[in-house]
Amino acid sequence: MSTTTPLRSLNINNINPHVKEAKYAVRGELAVRSEEYRSSLASGVTDLPFDQIISANIGNPQQLDQKPITFFRQVLSLVENPVLLENEGVLLNHLGYKSDVIARAKWLLKEVGSVGAYSASAGALGIRESVAKFLERRDGFPTEAKDIYLSAGASSGVNTLLHIICAGPQTGVLVPIPQYPLYTATLAVLNATCVPYYLEESKGWGTDVEAIKAAHKKAVDAGTDVRAIVIINPGNPTGSSLSEEDVKAVIEFAAQERLVIIADEVYQTNVFIGTFHSFKGVLRKMQQSDPAKYKYVELASLHSISKGMVGECGHRGGYFELCGFDPEVAEQIYKFVSITLCAPVVGQCLVEMMVNPPREGEPSYELYKQEWDGIFFGLNQRATALYEAFKQMEGVECQEPRGSMYLFPTIKLSQKAIEAAKKENRTPDEFYSFRLLDATGICIVAGSGFGQKEGTLHFRTTFLAPGTEWVGRITKFHKEFMDEFR
Amino acid sequence: MSTTTPLRSLNINNINPHVKEAKYAVRGELAVRSEEYRSSLASGVTDLPFDQIISANIGNPQQLDQKPITFFRQVLSLVENPVLLENEGVLLNHLGYKSDVIARAKWLLKEVGSVGAYSASAGALGIRESVAKFLERRDGFPTEAKDIYLSAGASSGVNTLLHIICAGPQTGVLVPIPQYPLYTATLAVLNATCVPYYLEESKGWGTDVEAIKAAHKKAVDAGTDVRAIVIINPGNPTGSSLSEEDVKAVIEFAAQERLVIIADEVYQTNVFIGTFHSFKGVLRKMQQSDPAKYKYVELASLHSISKGMVGECGHRGGYFELCGFDPEVAEQIYKFVSITLCAPVVGQCLVEMMVNPPREGEPSYELYKQEWDGIFFGLNQRATALYEAFKQMEGVECQEPRGSMYLFPTIKLSQKAIEAAKKENRTPDEFYSFRLLDATGICIVAGSGFGQKEGTLHFRTTFLAPGTEWVGRITKFHKEFMDEFR
Repeated sequence: MSTTTPLRSLNINNINPHVKEAKYAVRGELAVRSEEYRSSLASGVTDLPFDQIISANIGNPQQLDQKPITFFRQVLSLVENPVLLENEGVLLNHLGYKSDVIARAKWLLKEVGSVGAYSASAGALGIRESVAKFLERRDGFPTEAKDIYLSAGASSGVNTLLHIICAGPQTGVLVPIPQYPLYTATLAVLNATCVPYYLEESKGWGTDVEAIKAAHKKAVDAGTDVRAIVIINPGNPTGSSLSEEDVKAVIEFAAQERLVIIADEVYQTNVFIGTFHSFKGVLRKMQQSDPAKYKYVELASLHSISKGMVGECGHRGGYFELCGFDPEVAEQIYKFVSITLCAPVVGQCLVEMMVNPPREGEPSYELYKQEWDGIFFGLNQRATALYEAFKQMEGVECQEPRGSMYLFPTIKLSQKAIEAAKKENRTPDEFYSFRLLDATGICIVAGSGFGQKEGTLHFRTTFLAPGTEWVGRITKFHKEFMDEFR
Repeated sequence: MSTTTPLRSLNINNINPHVKEAKYAVRGELAVRSEEYRSSLASGVTDLPFDQIISANIGNPQQLDQKPITFFRQVLSLVENPVLLENEGVLLNHLGYKSDVIARAKWLLKEVGSVGAYSASAGALGIRESVAKFLERRDGFPTEAKDIYLSAGASSGVNTLLHIICAGPQTGVLVPIPQYPLYTATLAVLNATCVPYYLEESKGWGTDVEAIKAAHKKAVDAGTDVRAIVIINPGNPTGSSLSEEDVKAVIEFAAQERLVIIADEVYQTNVFIGTFHSFKGVLRKMQQSDPAKYKYVELASLHSISKGMVGECGHRGGYFELCGFDPEVAEQIYKFVSITLCAPVVGQCLVEMMVNPPREGEPSYELYKQEWDGIFFGLNQRATALYEAFKQMEGVECQEPRGSMYLFPTIKLSQKAIEAAKKENRTPDEFYSFRLLDATGICIVAGSGFGQKEGTLHFRTTFLAPGTEWVGRITKFHKEFMDEFR
């Protein structure tokens, strides 16, 4: 073999360039280093300045403190091992299972057959019907199971939707900045055009419809075929929660410009200020008052078992609902999801239990309610504690936590810190985040991983980690960092 | 709104054309109609000529007769509800759990934390280490956990690999014909070039390296950058099982032409004649005898919990191993899989148990062995019964079943049948398959869904359905069909 012949078929210069372009900082270099530290600690290394890794980089509730909801897991143990149902007496009398746990497991098994079998491509019909009923209760409008597609977490739903929408580099999708990098990464892989619009930090990271209009116009003027707008509500990474007026304004604009609305609503139960307003509910109300104007608005709204008080992200479950889509387009969505066969069936069962939990008067209700409230109040408390700590930190400004699992404070760093970052070939926020990790074992994500206005710096942290000791570690590090680079 | 303005953003003519091009017959129109029949029967319709749907269109073992392996499901019930581990006495004395079930559940929980938490992007490290040990035992060569990527079934692994390999329409991938349509569908979505090579029906659907060479040359001459070759062994839809010589010949050719080998080995335990020869094992032996020549061969081999005696496809678990890949390319694979966060963690646990089942002398071994053997012999028996039935049918020829879960017989149809098909705008094999479904409730897949040589007709059927009554239904239908169109 001559020396000029490449040794292998694949190298970094000839693989899919669009995969290369994709960025996913949530699990990037910082996260990789934090896992290396974790392994070192586990293997007995003691010369690190910390004895524990806090993964505040990713919304992974059960990795930290959040306990699974008892009802969910009791039911799953039975659908995994249905033989247990032959011993109801033992379950009830010795293992603390209630009769509604047993009834739910039997019902789910009737619907799916076996959790080890493929379901229909869009999910088990009975579970999709249960989701439809939940949406009727939530929003007060009729919903059909045929419009529900069960997915492997919301990520897989987003992947499906963007695959259908994006027809090439000329297709544009409006994406909030800052955003969850799934959107930019998937658009990069699909070689489509991300049309960024900025959220309004000073208004709790809400949407600013004028900013959306300007971004849209600029893209259209440049020849981009803008087809869709992504809204993440409650916000990731921002911790925002939209008012009904904000939601209306987005729908109004989407109707006017014929944009598909992709409403990422996976944090819909993580709301600390005000109420969650679903795009579906608001759209249906607008359709009632002016049917002609809003009849053909296309909305895909997503939900997941990964977040909220459920927090079962490792089970990879979720769904999306289509409203107003052309049936021929929906058929292509069906075909696309069928290529990967079906979402994990245990995840489908969890979707069912999330949308149809024990109700008042049922045997498991009391414990369920207690666990749910405990998680909710715990998250709210931690969000507030972190927010209060940030408020005290020099050069840090943070919006009040309204929803989701994150805070996204602004940091102002000195010129000296910015130059030190440049020397390490990092952005200043990355530099700060690496220093934080190296000093404290706390892993966050630099704002540049989500996008931010030119000249501003941020970081995202979850507030899932228990206790307050780690918040103290951040405060102490921050003070030392500011002093070092003063 | 003027009548010429489209009502919606998306329509069948402007969505992603590559998704539109993708075909996936395994869950296509025939399967959809069979599900409609199933619903009708469930809702009490009695005027159909059958009272049951047999889904022989898809390898979905637990939808039909196959029972899950007890050890696997007992362990899963405990990882889903770890509180049960606080009642070991009840588990052991009242519910038939053995001590190794409890030990395995504890070990898995130690490795993953909670099955509700995201794992690392490529899967939980302890499980990847267990897969590496299995591959060392299977093939007799050292294996590293860092080369193992846990995936949501093999489908997701194939999707990842093709995403990396395919850089545009000029990229070619050699795909066997007939093939499992995941390959052509994914290549269509990626807008890459499928380079078909024909399998040798007369030799039990084995590979014919001369046919591969000719297909490769033709594509290269046409300007295609052929980068990879897909091998499905044991074969889907063909039921083939390759000899060591066949495997060697493919590796030899791949080394010579610098092609990535994608070895789809999900049926590696479904082998009825001869032995399974893994690409990894054969490659390592060739590397021992001539290191310089084979050092840089790039092999990605896939396995899954969906098939074999495990049959847990609803859990969406699997893995792929990379051999000889450039580390920079492997880094991009890591980033790509991280965008969808991780494979379902319960599926990861099942992968671990598949590769590390109870061993002789352990408490659960005897039952495990008995269940495994029962499934294996049952499948072998049904394959043989179906094969014998096909041999008796007029105009049908079938290769002896060697492996996997399918038979793929040739059918010869009369000119009259071919014309009747044309009138219904269907290929003759589709026409035959629809007639079979309408008459018997048995759903198969027409050969055109997998590809077949011009002028030949086939269909694929699984042999998973229990009993022999349904085989009788096929025989009776076939005779009537042949008589009708004589």
